[in-house]
Amino acid sequence: MNREQLAALLEEVATGRLSPASAVERLRHFPSEQLSFAQVDHHRALRQGYPEVVFCAGKTVEQVLGICERLEAASGTFLGTRATVEQADALGDRFERLEWNPLARTVHLPPVRASARVAPGTVLVVCAGTSDLPVAEEAAVVAAAFGHPVERLSDVGVAGLHRLMGASELLAKAAVIIVVAGMEGALPSVVGGLVGVPVIAVPTSVGYGASFGGISALLGMLNSCAAGVTVVNIDNGFGAAAAASRILRRD
Amino acid sequence: MNREQLAALLEEVATGRLSPASAVERLRHFPSEQLSFAQVDHHRALRQGYPEVVFCAGKTVEQVLGICERLEAASGTFLGTRATVEQADALGDRFERLEWNPLARTVHLPPVRASARVAPGTVLVVCAGTSDLPVAEEAAVVAAAFGHPVERLSDVGVAGLHRLMGASELLAKAAVIIVVAGMEGALPSVVGGLVGVPVIAVPTSVGYGASFGGISALLGMLNSCAAGVTVVNIDNGFGAAAAASRILRRD
Amino acid sequence: MNREQLAALLEEVATGRLSPASAVERLRHFPSEQLSFAQVDHHRALRQGYPEVVFCAGKTVEQVLGICERLEAASGTFLGTRATVEQADALGDRFERLEWNPLARTVHLPPVRASARVAPGTVLVVCAGTSDLPVAEEAAVVAAAFGHPVERLSDVGVAGLHRLMGASELLAKAAVIIVVAGMEGALPSVVGGLVGVPVIAVPTSVGYGASFGGISALLGMLNSCAAGVTVVNIDNGFGAAAAASRILRRD
Amino acid sequence: MNREQLAALLEEVATGRLSPASAVERLRHFPSEQLSFAQVDHHRALRQGYPEVVFCAGKTVEQVLGICERLEAASGTFLGTRATVEQADALGDRFERLEWNPLARTVHLPPVRASARVAPGTVLVVCAGTSDLPVAEEAAVVAAAFGHPVERLSDVGVAGLHRLMGASELLAKAAVIIVVAGMEGALPSVVGGLVGVPVIAVPTSVGYGASFGGISALLGMLNSCAAGVTVVNIDNGFGAAAAASRILRRD
Amino acid sequence: MNREQLAALLEEVATGRLSPASAVERLRHFPSEQLSFAQVDHHRALRQGYPEVVFCAGKTVEQVLGICERLEAASGTFLGTRATVEQADALGDRFERLEWNPLARTVHLPPVRASARVAPGTVLVVCAGTSDLPVAEEAAVVAAAFGHPVERLSDVGVAGLHRLMGASELLAKAAVIIVVAGMEGALPSVVGGLVGVPVIAVPTSVGYGASFGGISALLGMLNSCAAGVTVVNIDNGFGAAAAASRILRRD
Amino acid sequence: MNREQLAALLEEVATGRLSPASAVERLRHFPSEQLSFAQVDHHRALRQGYPEVVFCAGKTVEQVLGICERLEAASGTFLGTRATVEQADALGDRFERLEWNPLARTVHLPPVRASARVAPGTVLVVCAGTSDLPVAEEAAVVAAAFGHPVERLSDVGVAGLHRLMGASELLAKAAVIIVVAGMEGALPSVVGGLVGVPVIAVPTSVGYGASFGGISALLGMLNSCAAGVTVVNIDNGFGAAAAASRILRRD
Amino acid sequence: MNREQLAALLEEVATGRLSPASAVERLRHFPSEQLSFAQVDHHRALRQGYPEVVFCAGKTVEQVLGICERLEAASGTFLGTRATVEQADALGDRFERLEWNPLARTVHLPPVRASARVAPGTVLVVCAGTSDLPVAEEAAVVAAAFGHPVERLSDVGVAGLHRLMGASELLAKAAVIIVVAGMEGALPSVVGGLVGVPVIAVPTSVGYGASFGGISALLGMLNSCAAGVTVVNIDNGFGAAAAASRILRRD
Amino acid sequence: MNREQLAALLEEVATGRLSPASAVERLRHFPSEQLSFAQVDHHRALRQGYPEVVFCAGKTVEQVLGICERLEAASGTFLGTRATVEQADALGDRFERLEWNPLARTVHLPPVRASARVAPGTVLVVCAGTSDLPVAEEAAVVAAAFGHPVERLSDVGVAGLHRLMGASELLAKAAVIIVVAGMEGALPSVVGGLVGVPVIAVPTSVGYGASFGGISALLGMLNSCAAGVTVVNIDNGFGAAAAASRILRRD
Repeated sequence: MNREQLAALLEEVATGRLSPASAVERLRHFPSEQLSFAQVDHHRALRQGYPEVVFCAGKTVEQVLGICERLEAASGTFLGTRATVEQADALGDRFERLEWNPLARTVHLPPVRASARVAPGTVLVVCAGTSDLPVAEEAAVVAAAFGHPVERLSDVGVAGLHRLMGASELLAKAAVIIVVAGMEGALPSVVGGLVGVPVIAVPTSVGYGASFGGISALLGMLNSCAAGVTVVNIDNGFGAAAAASRILRRD
Repeated sequence: MNREQLAALLEEVATGRLSPASAVERLRHFPSEQLSFAQVDHHRALRQGYPEVVFCAGKTVEQVLGICERLEAASGTFLGTRATVEQADALGDRFERLEWNPLARTVHLPPVRASARVAPGTVLVVCAGTSDLPVAEEAAVVAAAFGHPVERLSDVGVAGLHRLMGASELLAKAAVIIVVAGMEGALPSVVGGLVGVPVIAVPTSVGYGASFGGISALLGMLNSCAAGVTVVNIDNGFGAAAAASRILRRD
Repeated sequence: MNREQLAALLEEVATGRLSPASAVERLRHFPSEQLSFAQVDHHRALRQGYPEVVFCAGKTVEQVLGICERLEAASGTFLGTRATVEQADALGDRFERLEWNPLARTVHLPPVRASARVAPGTVLVVCAGTSDLPVAEEAAVVAAAFGHPVERLSDVGVAGLHRLMGASELLAKAAVIIVVAGMEGALPSVVGGLVGVPVIAVPTSVGYGASFGGISALLGMLNSCAAGVTVVNIDNGFGAAAAASRILRRD
Repeated sequence: MNREQLAALLEEVATGRLSPASAVERLRHFPSEQLSFAQVDHHRALRQGYPEVVFCAGKTVEQVLGICERLEAASGTFLGTRATVEQADALGDRFERLEWNPLARTVHLPPVRASARVAPGTVLVVCAGTSDLPVAEEAAVVAAAFGHPVERLSDVGVAGLHRLMGASELLAKAAVIIVVAGMEGALPSVVGGLVGVPVIAVPTSVGYGASFGGISALLGMLNSCAAGVTVVNIDNGFGAAAAASRILRRD
Repeated sequence: MNREQLAALLEEVATGRLSPASAVERLRHFPSEQLSFAQVDHHRALRQGYPEVVFCAGKTVEQVLGICERLEAASGTFLGTRATVEQADALGDRFERLEWNPLARTVHLPPVRASARVAPGTVLVVCAGTSDLPVAEEAAVVAAAFGHPVERLSDVGVAGLHRLMGASELLAKAAVIIVVAGMEGALPSVVGGLVGVPVIAVPTSVGYGASFGGISALLGMLNSCAAGVTVVNIDNGFGAAAAASRILRRD
Repeated sequence: MNREQLAALLEEVATGRLSPASAVERLRHFPSEQLSFAQVDHHRALRQGYPEVVFCAGKTVEQVLGICERLEAASGTFLGTRATVEQADALGDRFERLEWNPLARTVHLPPVRASARVAPGTVLVVCAGTSDLPVAEEAAVVAAAFGHPVERLSDVGVAGLHRLMGASELLAKAAVIIVVAGMEGALPSVVGGLVGVPVIAVPTSVGYGASFGGISALLGMLNSCAAGVTVVNIDNGFGAAAAASRILRRD
Repeated sequence: MNREQLAALLEEVATGRLSPASAVERLRHFPSEQLSFAQVDHHRALRQGYPEVVFCAGKTVEQVLGICERLEAASGTFLGTRATVEQADALGDRFERLEWNPLARTVHLPPVRASARVAPGTVLVVCAGTSDLPVAEEAAVVAAAFGHPVERLSDVGVAGLHRLMGASELLAKAAVIIVVAGMEGALPSVVGGLVGVPVIAVPTSVGYGASFGGISALLGMLNSCAAGVTVVNIDNGFGAAAAASRILRRD
Repeated sequence: MNREQLAALLEEVATGRLSPASAVERLRHFPSEQLSFAQVDHHRALRQGYPEVVFCAGKTVEQVLGICERLEAASGTFLGTRATVEQADALGDRFERLEWNPLARTVHLPPVRASARVAPGTVLVVCAGTSDLPVAEEAAVVAAAFGHPVERLSDVGVAGLHRLMGASELLAKAAVIIVVAGMEGALPSVVGGLVGVPVIAVPTSVGYGASFGGISALLGMLNSCAAGVTVVNIDNGFGAAAAASRILRRD
């Protein structure tokens, strides 16, 4: 039951076509519809100019194509993460304007008319090693698709601090910093100690042996000695970008 | 907003004292109240003659006493699990009719007028070793407090099958069987293979070394080769009794 | 030793052809046969109109075909779970009436004459995300094959509560609810808080990174704050259906 | 080497008292001092009116007293977390204005002259159960000590959604939401699905058995199906408040 | 139903006082009794001169005393493991002949008339470090109480091989070797490579940090590169002695 | 340095061709040779008529062929475990008498002249489900190759106890029982409660979800409530057979 | 900013072309450059005659080729680890002098003019089983490429100590010993007990079942009872060689 | 059998008092004595001026006193780690010259005549936070007791890099660096990137929640992106000092 339907029902009550008791009965059986229109309002706010996001991993080419076609029809835009080459090829054949980033494994159909900038502030995506790049790039592409300016700073692992130090101006300009690292996951602590802005840590599954598919980096980040660093799931570049967007759109 | 308040609001609309638009505004800000009266109805059904349940572990004597006094005032009954001797003593001083089971660590104030039996069917609580008794007894006391007849069958571990076999009539009469076991947690598989009624497995933290505080029993029960055995948390006798009550009250 | 053989032996004792002492000796060496005919009775009750269930994963096409042929010959029906396309094709060539559900990965040969309904009560299979569908569908197909009416409610994850709330009538009508979810496994807690009937939670291996192949969902469900929710193994749709059937057939 | 020292050195070069080559030598041996004055500037910005924070757990009463006296002498304020009653008593004897919160286990000496508000925006601390209150209260006290207005919303676990729904206005007004939950850790997913602002999830060690000291809640939160929820360490209310402060002070 | 009862029943059938059909009915309801007398026979064989064993940990002084009194009354002997000083004192007051080994934490009431030796062959208990001695001593005491000659070889860790090598004659004489070790648990591999007799490995919880309460030693022993080494639970000296007794009594 | 070389050296000393001091020097640099001839004696005893055993997994066809050719040349026999079809084919082409067991994945070249029986006593290999058969068969083939008579008992899982009970005579006749089970690993506890002979438990990686590749079965077996059950590594049928052989050859 | 740039800046100050205040501003924005030239000096020292090392796993043939071409152009040498056959083939086509070790999976382009020996002392690489050889060989190749003489000692597992003892002279001559072992990882303890030189332990992922991909060996080595044994990551032969090189180059 | 005994035996052979055959027999039964004198030689080398080390944790005051008295009698010196106040007091009463370090929990009786320096080179003990000090101090005291000059650098966690950078000269002078850190364990990576000398990482159990008693720091260190960093067990300051001593004494 949306706002219009509720208004119509109340109109019926006001005009005597529906008794209050009957209205109680009808309202009492549809609590969720009451809830849903709050949701709809909220969702509308969330989606102003934003693409819908599809998690492509584990879906067939046909499923991805079908979902994206529906999204494009509804909103003129979509964004897919963890896409395979086959999925990207099929989408590229169907949508001429498709942007395929093979490193980030993202497929993006930007809206025809770019939305006005949703919020000020640059997202800086910092990454420890070249093997972390796919996750970092996923974060960067998603943040950009959500309407935020994005900067990148790569290959600044903690075993060679001079590279990170050489980028202090870049660090100082960022509104939110996403730090992507595998292995020991120490980079967010160092970055968090250098800046005062929000730092979102993304552990990656990069490494072998006792990296245990990213557990080592995840634990390192959760135990960061830099106060106020927050963490998302292993390899979850998308989630970090969504968190950054929550922060920047806040105001 | 409960049903009466909603009816009053709609009455105002029907009588023209409130415009439909204003009613929409008021309703739209309170979706949860719409939800809550469904909840209340539902809760009322749940609570017919049932005691409220308090998890006493980690609460001070004063906190437990305060909560139980409020519950008694509201419903004339309460049930507490994981109670300490100190908590039980304080409650016993305050409530003359208190039933304290030191093995099960439960405190129960039964309602003055026993409710009619909520549902037919006996709950049988089976337990592997004497060390599992506190958890088994918690399940038994809670199930009884919820209004179900309870039978007990103890010390029937799988390394001495003849004891379990000797109780086949007891097994055959039960409507639901709660099986409590630590160590390797094999008893639910054996019981599940002997009966067709619901079997709820409760792993206990009994054991040492590689029992890892109940993980061994938990994993054994989750991997039971007897189809349709379900599992609750380690040492969660209360949860098993609640699940049994869901099953028996179903009809 | 079955009932007939026991009767014959006792007849021999009654007619003096076998001395009591010799009978003691013969009976004492065959305790399990004594047991087995109780088993047989029990099993017979379990199997009235039920298909035999084959776990096809890890078996060759030939093995599955051989087992199913024996089951069909014995009972006129069978049900296989975790079947591959190759296994399903081979069975389809052999059994014309085979029902192959590629999403649930089940193969079912229903009995020629449908058995009368075994018990009243609908099984509702609720599922959090589209990736959880194979497990949910396995539960649904198995429950139906066991003779229970089944309803489905899909894609009602906890991050969009309005979808779940919109289905309150469906929830209210179910006799048993199977809730299938991966990732954080929170859906059973929410459903368990909304209904009073039995809720069986099935964690799925859906997710990545710190979902650890379903451990995250499993732990979430075991720690559910809704009292009386029970849990089966990760991805074990079959087990949930078997548990539901134990509950419904109970009376 | 701070800015003044560097300026003096360069003055010597400018006036010919020091050769450029000697200056190179002196600068080359003190790279970190070069770094440190950037740090100092940065730290000064961080600390405007903020208390220093002391992690009291595992320290003796004497150690805590000593550290706090030095902090008070330097800045007129301090904040301690995880303080014991003994530590709080000793500090209370020494500092008349000390604010001791036994639930949050915090000791706070506010500055004599309250600093102007550092940033607009309210921090809402939501908590699932009463046992999660100490961690939630730590987050609330720290956020307030950092200069942010704080609201609290307690006991809104996911098994009773109507309580959370009844607080929709509170949720809608928050600039940042800290969600504290133990057991299955599902609350951040539900809150994250209802609001668009940043959501920081804090798992607690509340629970028993398969909650594994907070691992269950931690994994649930890392796998949240609500996009953009970030997570801090188990029981780390302080860290969540620090993260919230990074977000609010950003602009 | 024991052998006498079965004989009596069959006598009734033979004499016509009970019809075969009635006998079938009575036998069919008591399958486990059929089983149990096989058990009893078997148990009797097991117990010739053996003490009953009580796991004292987690039991009250009264419980232990009660159980031991019943055992002494029935068999004239008992053996308790993991006994506390209080339990031992109480038993010592009650049973004059009690043997209390505080290192092994065992209490033993040997039978008045020592049984003849149950089987030839010496049990050698080898132990890596002095901290492993309580577990090793438990194994030794239990093996001796079960009637086997026992030798001990202590403090022969793998970092000082010459000590183990110096005891080659002792190794060569043993019929079964129990090897007790914590930390890396390497000793069973070395011993297993030196001898051809059965080697039973007992991991202990000795160590700290990454020994994880004995997991390190347990995994080391399960992965032993010496073929045919078997393993029991962490700290389970009793179990190793029971396994040794199964081996020696075999013939 | 073997016994002959030592004797020769001492002969040189006796005849004055070598001074005692020089002999000390030569002996002091070769302590291990002193050790090795004890080893050689011991190894000779171990190998009387036994095949050498090759772990084929992870080796190339060429490597396996090369090793087996050397073993055949030296001893006329070999045994390989975890062999692939390709390895078996290549060995079959080279050795006409090769025995290839595809279920057990073993390749065996028996000696031309069968050795006399090494020891009395039958090894019974019991297995819970059909999926456990490869591991059970590996144990059976290895035990037979080591010269022990072997019996098999399959598909006697604990959820259908009557099948195990029906084989009580087989259980009673065995000298050593190897019990192979996956999932909850409960079978060794049941068997261990029925017999007094040595029981060696082999967990298998059979199962899914919370079986965690055999951890569930492994933990179940380590925590067996039947005293004296010992355990080997997951899927280690070879190790169980080697342990059985240590037991039977003991006397 | 390197040393030359700093000297030039100071020259400008000395000559009055730049004011001290302006110089402060310029220096203050580039702290990391100050740091970096210390780094450069340090790095230069590290690289005297050393090859650059590329971790090839997970890189495409093109990426590896591109990186190695840049390294060869800059320094005339490179070393790659975890290289595939395809990567090695492509490098071999491009660099005639390439040394490809398929067992170690290394590709090495030695410098045209061999550097003088960097430090005295032999690295001995000891390995437990033939399956550990790839990791051992990686360590050996890397150590040799770093300029150290290397000896190898293979297949000396702890279950056959005589083989290790037979190599005592080799052990005695080594300056650093790298010990590579899978399964229970006991070899470093034994070696560490025999020698006084540094022992670096490398766990390998060799094994199955409860070896858990090298965790068993890793834990065994971390808990070594031989004092002063240090450990690197699972399968990290490269890291062990780098640690050995740090030790040998120290003086 | 030591060198003198061997020489005497050979003298007997040379003089004809013992036949070569009898000598073979005597030598063949004492292989370990052959081994042991190599050991003794080796041990003697190890112990020149070194104290014996006693792990005091878990020992009674009497046991520690007894062991230390024997050590003092034999060598005039001892060193104890993990000592309690009670143990230290008792030792202090007995040995006037005892050095008790309550932070490091060490008790040291230095030799009366200080041995000459065993090897050149300073051990630098770096530590991340004040809570890591006990472990760092244990390493420092042990290294000093082993005869090495020791420097300390404390409270230089990676979230405040300027502190570490300010100590670059200290880092540059060290021959071996022991880095002690809890929480995320990132400090060894940073230090390892700054220096070329051996870096030994010691994870500590400092932290809470997801630090899991030091696992987080341990994994971080094992996955260090700085090549050649080696790791010892959690909290094992003693082991790190022993490893440093192996490195420094090497030449």
